[in-house]
Amino acid sequence: MKINFASDNHAGIHPDILKAIGDVNSGHVNAYGDDEYTNQAIQKFKDIFGDNIEVFFVFNGTGANVLSLASCTQSFNSIICSDYSHINVDECSAPEKFLGTKLITIPSVEGKIYPEQIDKVLIRKEDQHFTQPKVISITQSTEYGTVYNLEEIKSLADYAHKNNLYLHVDGARIANAAASLKLSLKEIITDTKVDILSFGGTKNGLMLGEAVVFFNSDLAKNFKYIRKQSMQLTSKMRFISAQFNALLSNDLYLKNAEHANKMAMLLYENIKDIPQIKITQKIQANSIFAIIPSQYIEILQSHYYFYVWNDLTSEVRLMCAFDTQEQDIINFAEIIRKTLNF
Amino acid sequence: MKINFASDNHAGIHPDILKAIGDVNSGHVNAYGDDEYTNQAIQKFKDIFGDNIEVFFVFNGTGANVLSLASCTQSFNSIICSDYSHINVDECSAPEKFLGTKLITIPSVEGKIYPEQIDKVLIRKEDQHFTQPKVISITQSTEYGTVYNLEEIKSLADYAHKNNLYLHVDGARIANAAASLKLSLKEIITDTKVDILSFGGTKNGLMLGEAVVFFNSDLAKNFKYIRKQSMQLTSKMRFISAQFNALLSNDLYLKNAEHANKMAMLLYENIKDIPQIKITQKIQANSIFAIIPSQYIEILQSHYYFYVWNDLTSEVRLMCAFDTQEQDIINFAEIIRKTLNF
Amino acid sequence: MKINFASDNHAGIHPDILKAIGDVNSGHVNAYGDDEYTNQAIQKFKDIFGDNIEVFFVFNGTGANVLSLASCTQSFNSIICSDYSHINVDECSAPEKFLGTKLITIPSVEGKIYPEQIDKVLIRKEDQHFTQPKVISITQSTEYGTVYNLEEIKSLADYAHKNNLYLHVDGARIANAAASLKLSLKEIITDTKVDILSFGGTKNGLMLGEAVVFFNSDLAKNFKYIRKQSMQLTSKMRFISAQFNALLSNDLYLKNAEHANKMAMLLYENIKDIPQIKITQKIQANSIFAIIPSQYIEILQSHYYFYVWNDLTSEVRLMCAFDTQEQDIINFAEIIRKTLNF
Amino acid sequence: MKINFASDNHAGIHPDILKAIGDVNSGHVNAYGDDEYTNQAIQKFKDIFGDNIEVFFVFNGTGANVLSLASCTQSFNSIICSDYSHINVDECSAPEKFLGTKLITIPSVEGKIYPEQIDKVLIRKEDQHFTQPKVISITQSTEYGTVYNLEEIKSLADYAHKNNLYLHVDGARIANAAASLKLSLKEIITDTKVDILSFGGTKNGLMLGEAVVFFNSDLAKNFKYIRKQSMQLTSKMRFISAQFNALLSNDLYLKNAEHANKMAMLLYENIKDIPQIKITQKIQANSIFAIIPSQYIEILQSHYYFYVWNDLTSEVRLMCAFDTQEQDIINFAEIIRKTLNF
Repeated sequence: MKINFASDNHAGIHPDILKAIGDVNSGHVNAYGDDEYTNQAIQKFKDIFGDNIEVFFVFNGTGANVLSLASCTQSFNSIICSDYSHINVDECSAPEKFLGTKLITIPSVEGKIYPEQIDKVLIRKEDQHFTQPKVISITQSTEYGTVYNLEEIKSLADYAHKNNLYLHVDGARIANAAASLKLSLKEIITDTKVDILSFGGTKNGLMLGEAVVFFNSDLAKNFKYIRKQSMQLTSKMRFISAQFNALLSNDLYLKNAEHANKMAMLLYENIKDIPQIKITQKIQANSIFAIIPSQYIEILQSHYYFYVWNDLTSEVRLMCAFDTQEQDIINFAEIIRKTLNF
Repeated sequence: MKINFASDNHAGIHPDILKAIGDVNSGHVNAYGDDEYTNQAIQKFKDIFGDNIEVFFVFNGTGANVLSLASCTQSFNSIICSDYSHINVDECSAPEKFLGTKLITIPSVEGKIYPEQIDKVLIRKEDQHFTQPKVISITQSTEYGTVYNLEEIKSLADYAHKNNLYLHVDGARIANAAASLKLSLKEIITDTKVDILSFGGTKNGLMLGEAVVFFNSDLAKNFKYIRKQSMQLTSKMRFISAQFNALLSNDLYLKNAEHANKMAMLLYENIKDIPQIKITQKIQANSIFAIIPSQYIEILQSHYYFYVWNDLTSEVRLMCAFDTQEQDIINFAEIIRKTLNF
Repeated sequence: MKINFASDNHAGIHPDILKAIGDVNSGHVNAYGDDEYTNQAIQKFKDIFGDNIEVFFVFNGTGANVLSLASCTQSFNSIICSDYSHINVDECSAPEKFLGTKLITIPSVEGKIYPEQIDKVLIRKEDQHFTQPKVISITQSTEYGTVYNLEEIKSLADYAHKNNLYLHVDGARIANAAASLKLSLKEIITDTKVDILSFGGTKNGLMLGEAVVFFNSDLAKNFKYIRKQSMQLTSKMRFISAQFNALLSNDLYLKNAEHANKMAMLLYENIKDIPQIKITQKIQANSIFAIIPSQYIEILQSHYYFYVWNDLTSEVRLMCAFDTQEQDIINFAEIIRKTLNF
Repeated sequence: MKINFASDNHAGIHPDILKAIGDVNSGHVNAYGDDEYTNQAIQKFKDIFGDNIEVFFVFNGTGANVLSLASCTQSFNSIICSDYSHINVDECSAPEKFLGTKLITIPSVEGKIYPEQIDKVLIRKEDQHFTQPKVISITQSTEYGTVYNLEEIKSLADYAHKNNLYLHVDGARIANAAASLKLSLKEIITDTKVDILSFGGTKNGLMLGEAVVFFNSDLAKNFKYIRKQSMQLTSKMRFISAQFNALLSNDLYLKNAEHANKMAMLLYENIKDIPQIKITQKIQANSIFAIIPSQYIEILQSHYYFYVWNDLTSEVRLMCAFDTQEQDIINFAEIIRKTLNF
């Protein structure tokens, strides 16, 4: 099996999840989520996050984020987020197109943003010429592979609510964050008073599928129309629901995330002492950011593909997935050491 | 295996297609369509429609339609379609939301629209106060289970091009139309000079997945950005591509459609002589529209579920799918006859 | 002074209103409506409609309508209106573009729509695939120069509220309706429980300027942001406010409307007995719709320009304005009679 | 006559322009710009900018900017502009709402941006996940009262065209820039190869009215529909056209701008030696930015109102208009000196 370190979305489907698709493939079932498999999947979310939630399945991460934000903003509002957030730099301005809102970006620190930074952009309240902030959106684990700790999330949620804002979490890799913090999803999301969560499935072993989880049911009121109008409603819903059923069974979501995190740490342990490599971010989830002298990059990529994150600085991202093999880590580390003559 | 007559999207995944998903589930593969399976699937489309096409995969039918129309309109344009078209009555105004355009509706005749009708709405050309029509969108097979014949499509395409319009075909059930006409997809689409086709996968046996096929490559120029911004780009593309590979292999798309059509015809043959039932539409694809006295409907639905299309007239829709069993047709017909004491 | 019968927006500025512009042209004044002239104009609206209103000035009729509707809908909602309504056929789909909503059209009867017609489109409630109606928009006086009577407005408002809808009135010619009904604006709008009114200024003697009047202050809550974001906020607001001050002083709005209506009636009286002319609509406001044999139209237009409303039927619209002269009516009638050899 | 230093849009209508409104107020005239006054105004624009232009009138500056940008972008494009640009911070995200585009901001230097800065954001070309820049938008004179010199504009235009971008100029105060540079509008706009200009009228003496001027007629092709759909088409166009006729006659636009600039310079000369005041921007057009100790600001505002630009630094903006009186400058300077005990 050929793997690479390019992205966790280069991985395939976890065998349990693939099996789950097949297991529900019998006969006719009501479309659009009016089926028992979807009910079961929603119940599994409630088992994890608590009963007072509303859950909706969508196709992909951009859909989960944009629809989450559509549920809590009007077009004259703005969204506060990190300058490196996926919604800001990797969604081809889907938020602007579909919400009409402005994204107000905060210079991230290790991929994270903090209340004291947000304070500086909470200006011109009630000024009709200026967009009115309505939600803070953070990514957990972040685009830089770092993880907000419990206090940081709590302080952002408290800050948001004190300022009449909502807190949205882009959790494309939320399981990796939970695994990293060794805390339950309930502890890091429900109990910290997050309002809306984009719960990632695809990067954690699904074929495709993400969930929008509302912890404030008022915000979910019109979601079914928003989802349909935004082209994110699948007809054969059972096949997304079944995947979530498998992912949330036997702690599979957690095991997958723990494994990916562990692989990243293992790779880190194997290369951290190479003096020519400069690790640029803390290793807290399933990726490593590192500066590698540019002359070696192409050679290394020919063995295990990965992305150059920043051409100018020669910073690369090495990402592990649920199916990254320990042997690959060992092989790759060895290749790196050889290539860099260390 | 429990089936019903509610919709072909109540069906599951065809076994060959499910198998194809599993077959490509090995190792890491480039995301977003930059992979061999996607190339293969595109080649299969070219084998069927000819080489001068561009093909893009999206999640669902609403996505395929809205993005097709996004590729050929600006917000001040309008879209000419049947009053009963899916884009007009079943997509929660996704076209209006994402395109900003008006839909100009034509009263359909057996689910179809004709050039002489369109003539009446091609008014106020160059009038800045009025939306400027840019595309005709038809559904093949139609929402009423009827099928445009070759001459009808040709005449619409000719009419469109003479009037500086494009012709879009919502082909959520295009295979059923080809099967019905006993003509190839190339004959009914490429050769008739259709400009854009929404090629349906989901209703013909896929888990999910539709293709947007461009026969005019100018229109495809910016499609990759439109798809991403419209939240219709999947990361693990190989799993949609693999499904299309299977669907387009061994004429599976055609066999599935032929079977569904045949089942509808069989059901029709078995109930057409019941005097209390009035068949309201021609049986040309995989559905039957019929008026059944309302007192019987609930009883029948308890055996095999189906939708009431029109509460006032007690018109129902009975739809067959690729997996509808001959025995079910026979059973259902028998139940109908017994229930109606015929 | 050359006048025509093309439209009341071919007229100029009423002298009192022009004078009012000059009268406030002294020194610096706060921008964007934070000035005494704007306060005065708002007070005049309250004097007419009652105190429980919110008033905002915008540039034009399309702006007034679209922003009114923006205040009471979300993109998955729909707007119920007449097929001939200005928002449907004369605003280049500005509502669809800026609201994302669908317009559900009702075949108008004498330019008007009725609750029993609306009943037929209030379908598929809570169905996520279908836009959810949220507002009825009527035009008063209508695009056909007819006028809803008090009972008709009341019944529409009652119907709307019973069905959880709002009632919006496109009052580009609301003064003509009041003049026609010989009722106050308060009686026909406030007391009938209209929710939002587009109050027309331009067609009744302003250089430009319309008001959005809310009778339900909840709906006005975010209007200032909507207006700014929709590019309808003028900086030197005093000059729009001053015009409204003049229009609403000394019953000028009513006198202008009464005069225009009277001129239309006078023209009607002078041509109604010509057998070759078929009056097609009731004369209730300031326009006449009539079928005139097509061979005469160009000749007549060379004397006094007017619009052909329907090329196929040779129906024309003859519209009077606040500044239409009695002598012009007499001259025009004479020319018509001569031309038609009557 | 009471003036202040808050904004040039606190000024009224220049007497010549007010007179021009009255002068065309006779009889009926075709609506929507199909009239001789509009033709005359367009000709005056051609006299100034050269014949190869297309000119359209709109209501306000936000309209002029957003519609200019609508003419050269699609929703997946992005707009490069200064972080302090009006489109970014003072239009309540009208660009995002109506275009769907992202604004990519550049940290301005004295209110200006430069090619070498833009280079850093011209990244990820052809990457479907990233918005594709299509236009650079600069403000001339800038929001900080500074002026791009001829070389700077040329280099931006050259840079834009070399990179397949357009150059748009927000010229809300373009006349002030021309007056400052002592160059003709043709020299600084047409000859430098600007593609689209928002030509400001309101801040230079109009009651209201801005022009969108295209130097690339391809971009203007659909502007009439865009203008109508964007609610920026006035019916009684003659009254905006007449204002432009007056503004562009006898070099009034230039005289007004020269006067405003001169007043700003005069104020500067009178306060520059006050040690407690720190002038923060070059005085190149009609505004002064200065840090004044906060304890004095309220006192000064009670005499002549002005805005605090930055609460934290106590930076204020003092803006002069076409009607600012020399005596007011002298009085204000004296009050400042007295208040600051200098």
